[in-house]
Amino acid sequence: MLEELKQSVLEANLALPKHGLVTFTWGNVSGFNREKGLIVIKPSGVSYDELRRDDMVVVDLNGKVVEGNLNPSSDTPTHIVLYKNFTNIGGIVHTHAPWSTSWAQAGKGIPPLGTTHADYFYGTVPCTRSMTKDEIQGAYEHETGKVIVETFNQTNPQEIPGVLVHSHAPFTWGKDPNEAVYNAVVLEEVAKMALHTYQLNPNACSMDQALLDKHYLRKHGSKAYYGQKK
Amino acid sequence: MLEELKQSVLEANLALPKHGLVTFTWGNVSGFNREKGLIVIKPSGVSYDELRRDDMVVVDLNGKVVEGNLNPSSDTPTHIVLYKNFTNIGGIVHTHAPWSTSWAQAGKGIPPLGTTHADYFYGTVPCTRSMTKDEIQGAYEHETGKVIVETFNQTNPQEIPGVLVHSHAPFTWGKDPNEAVYNAVVLEEVAKMALHTYQLNPNACSMDQALLDKHYLRKHGSKAYYGQKK
Amino acid sequence: MLEELKQSVLEANLALPKHGLVTFTWGNVSGFNREKGLIVIKPSGVSYDELRRDDMVVVDLNGKVVEGNLNPSSDTPTHIVLYKNFTNIGGIVHTHAPWSTSWAQAGKGIPPLGTTHADYFYGTVPCTRSMTKDEIQGAYEHETGKVIVETFNQTNPQEIPGVLVHSHAPFTWGKDPNEAVYNAVVLEEVAKMALHTYQLNPNACSMDQALLDKHYLRKHGSKAYYGQKK
Amino acid sequence: MLEELKQSVLEANLALPKHGLVTFTWGNVSGFNREKGLIVIKPSGVSYDELRRDDMVVVDLNGKVVEGNLNPSSDTPTHIVLYKNFTNIGGIVHTHAPWSTSWAQAGKGIPPLGTTHADYFYGTVPCTRSMTKDEIQGAYEHETGKVIVETFNQTNPQEIPGVLVHSHAPFTWGKDPNEAVYNAVVLEEVAKMALHTYQLNPNACSMDQALLDKHYLRKHGSKAYYGQKK
Repeated sequence: MLEELKQSVLEANLALPKHGLVTFTWGNVSGFNREKGLIVIKPSGVSYDELRRDDMVVVDLNGKVVEGNLNPSSDTPTHIVLYKNFTNIGGIVHTHAPWSTSWAQAGKGIPPLGTTHADYFYGTVPCTRSMTKDEIQGAYEHETGKVIVETFNQTNPQEIPGVLVHSHAPFTWGKDPNEAVYNAVVLEEVAKMALHTYQLNPNACSMDQALLDKHYLRKHGSKAYYGQKK
Repeated sequence: MLEELKQSVLEANLALPKHGLVTFTWGNVSGFNREKGLIVIKPSGVSYDELRRDDMVVVDLNGKVVEGNLNPSSDTPTHIVLYKNFTNIGGIVHTHAPWSTSWAQAGKGIPPLGTTHADYFYGTVPCTRSMTKDEIQGAYEHETGKVIVETFNQTNPQEIPGVLVHSHAPFTWGKDPNEAVYNAVVLEEVAKMALHTYQLNPNACSMDQALLDKHYLRKHGSKAYYGQKK
Repeated sequence: MLEELKQSVLEANLALPKHGLVTFTWGNVSGFNREKGLIVIKPSGVSYDELRRDDMVVVDLNGKVVEGNLNPSSDTPTHIVLYKNFTNIGGIVHTHAPWSTSWAQAGKGIPPLGTTHADYFYGTVPCTRSMTKDEIQGAYEHETGKVIVETFNQTNPQEIPGVLVHSHAPFTWGKDPNEAVYNAVVLEEVAKMALHTYQLNPNACSMDQALLDKHYLRKHGSKAYYGQKK
Repeated sequence: MLEELKQSVLEANLALPKHGLVTFTWGNVSGFNREKGLIVIKPSGVSYDELRRDDMVVVDLNGKVVEGNLNPSSDTPTHIVLYKNFTNIGGIVHTHAPWSTSWAQAGKGIPPLGTTHADYFYGTVPCTRSMTKDEIQGAYEHETGKVIVETFNQTNPQEIPGVLVHSHAPFTWGKDPNEAVYNAVVLEEVAKMALHTYQLNPNACSMDQALLDKHYLRKHGSKAYYGQKK
């Protein structure tokens, strides 16, 4: 069942330690087959060394395990909320990558300070509000998804494919698991450089809007001209 | 004698350089067989490259070498005090890992700023008080253990499995040597991210208590639901 | 055509990830045959893993592709302006290396704070002014080259073989692609150390002019005495 | 001639990139045979990849090349001054290692902030004064040695086996080339941790003198008890 998606979810999970984004088991990737309404996700707490394609767990949009012998990631309810609400995404990554997580712990979004950011994120990568006691003590992982969706109320999640969850860590997404990992790597680089930028210039402010437009649109949309025609 | 424990202590010691926690010989791991009252510990000043299982030294709770041709770690008396006082631990790690050590040198405990911390440490990782001249000039390594125990007067060492010794470096522990190493890795990640969090937000304060509870208890205790059932 | 230059441009491009200067495809190197007026440059958006000599694109000084099946780097017009105006250079590197890019995002040049800098850059590595809306919305990559040239109005690009483009990232150059990569590595080291120097001493100022002269001229020009006679 | 010393100088030089202390050729190690009054030193500007034992250059205390086909390190006159004045040392290392160099560029010595420092350096690692214009324009490398010696006027170079040369970078030394490299690694770790300590606590001050004594003397001198008896 969904063998191809399982393979791409496996590979995307294995890419996390390769890119230095995870310590131990602190990350997970899922992929979504929107037609069938089924998610393939990493099992909970399993070491990346031991992960095989058949360990991937298939769950439906109610969180019911449809296939697989292992428990799915404890963050599965968050993934479900995002797939339901962000209708163009096909892959989600969650990590505790250190630079991005430091911004999440600081409770601050990452403003666009240069073209590296603008090439992939069309504006500030936002930080969610703190979750309430009720949300935390209720269906916590489900509520985490909801607070992310709330944060994107006025923002297009395709243009800003990532978020920092307050006092927690980043989530990123993309059209497939591979692109979601790509965006997680970009976010970590951008988070690192933004911190150092502020150390050099505490008054640094967001880049020029025209430059932001130029770089984002050079790579995205109908007028993109970066890379090779496909 | 204690061949299985020696093997796990050896492996735990070798994991320290693998995780980037030690330079040269600046670290040691021990394991404790509580029934027999015997500790297995790294020999003093021996390079990790050359370390073999039979180099491990067996000492009793009086610090007497029971088996082994090499001197035990000079920090052995500290380990003994901890095993005597923290009655549920079976492994101890000491390193001079750079981020944790920077906090120890700053004389500051690491407050819980995010869920990475909360997943493993149920509150602030404390820094001991400075040791007195008498303590330093007396049975120094024994007194180091005592000042750690004093620091945990009001704190459960199972819930906060690590400490920063003032002007020195961290100790961590766990139910066995492997878990103690795990906690040393977590502490180093948490120390790094906490420093960067304060750089981004000098007014950052401890995370919400409800969120701390949620994450710690999601992984520990009878209601834990992270990972696979064992 | 230009097989030798293609080979050296290929090797210089592959050196970028080896030196930790690039993430994904975020960098490019070109080489220039000044006699023939032809540039060899990396194709746009191609992964370093897959890059082969025959992927290198040959373009003339009007930006016309003379040989090659792939699109040249989208930054090609910037390279062209530099080759036209900096008459002694034969190689150019562009990266988003994190420390250099943080200075570019901060909008600050890197002053010479020590002999590491002075050995290769004979003064401050400047940051360009911000580009205007018209420049950004016009022939952007061409204008990027022009703002770099403007920045070197009073400065010899052979003595300062690199620049930070405001809100963007560094360019470096040299007599050939290999030397341009060398200077990119130096700039990244210098950028990192300058940031930490300011953290230790916010009032740090430029090094003594006599020391700057000594170190630069020990390695460059007719009185150089560093290294082996060639 | 001096084949054994050449071998140990070669190995010590190769250890520099292995420990991450050098970029390109930015470092050199020498060893001294005090009986014969001969120094073995790395040749100038030769890549570590290509370095072979027979490339090592033998020079006497007047700086005359006694054996070898290559130019000795341009820093040779500095090494000579140190061997002449520090009468118990047998090996010297110079690098531009980034954390130590940042302190040198800041013009600040590194105070002892914790036991990692105290285990190897018995007090502040000093930074030299700025060199005068005459010193720089005169026999620069010789004068560099002299300003280091002046800095140790009141300090025992065996107890503080390293220095930061103002606006330049560190030198370390030891009883042989290998120990000099060891101390260079320690200095770099200590420099990194001291910077982070000040970031966490700008008011951090030197560690307790009793603790400094305890740790230094636990490893050095007649009452040392760290490690194995030899």
